[in-house]
Amino acid sequence: MENQVIAEPLHSEAECKRSLTAVGDALYVIGGKWKLRIIIALREGNKRFNELQRTVTGISARVLSHELKELELNGFVKRNVYTQIPVIVEYELTEYSNSLNDVLQSLSEWGAMHRDKIRRER
Amino acid sequence: MENQVIAEPLHSEAECKRSLTAVGDALYVIGGKWKLRIIIALREGNKRFNELQRTVTGISARVLSHELKELELNGFVKRNVYTQIPVIVEYELTEYSNSLNDVLQSLSEWGAMHRDKIRRER
Repeated sequence: MENQVIAEPLHSEAECKRSLTAVGDALYVIGGKWKLRIIIALREGNKRFNELQRTVTGISARVLSHELKELELNGFVKRNVYTQIPVIVEYELTEYSNSLNDVLQSLSEWGAMHRDKIRRER
Repeated sequence: MENQVIAEPLHSEAECKRSLTAVGDALYVIGGKWKLRIIIALREGNKRFNELQRTVTGISARVLSHELKELELNGFVKRNVYTQIPVIVEYELTEYSNSLNDVLQSLSEWGAMHRDKIRRER
């Protein structure tokens, strides 16, 4: 990693500021350890709370409940209550969550690429 | 946001697991509040510690120092020490940081889109 040259042209200060703001906005809403992982888990299909907790390995019930509320507030997740007996509560992705497809795709590709790189370097 | 239909086909369980792992890997390395913002700030050009702290609004010196060490360890940032008097320390992006271009681009586009949406809804 010595004497590396940055191939990309350097960005202007104004571009940098705009990009910082937009990425800051994005991270504010979908950043953190869990939100994107919860969204990915729900892409497989609607899930009840316990199923979701099993899929998103390592999340506590308290944190999952908090994250789901924020995801609902921001319009990514819908909470469906079926008033039969016993009552069933299911979480479902909204159409707006599809707006994250490019973000998820690029993160997923980068994560796989980075894992390969680490593996090769060992 | 009622009666929404998910346009995307539902992903299989195996795809979901792969995607969860890759996105989890990515978030493990570049997640959190600051790392991507530090990288964006350095795209504008190499910076000294204090310049960087001014550009990445809100970050404390302690956290910036910690984040820079992690970014260096993971091969995104290079620390250049010029042994003149006074000694100058400058931070520079490595070529590998360019591998994040797609991630940054998609996050930046999504952030701008989301901000517009919020503004329209008010």
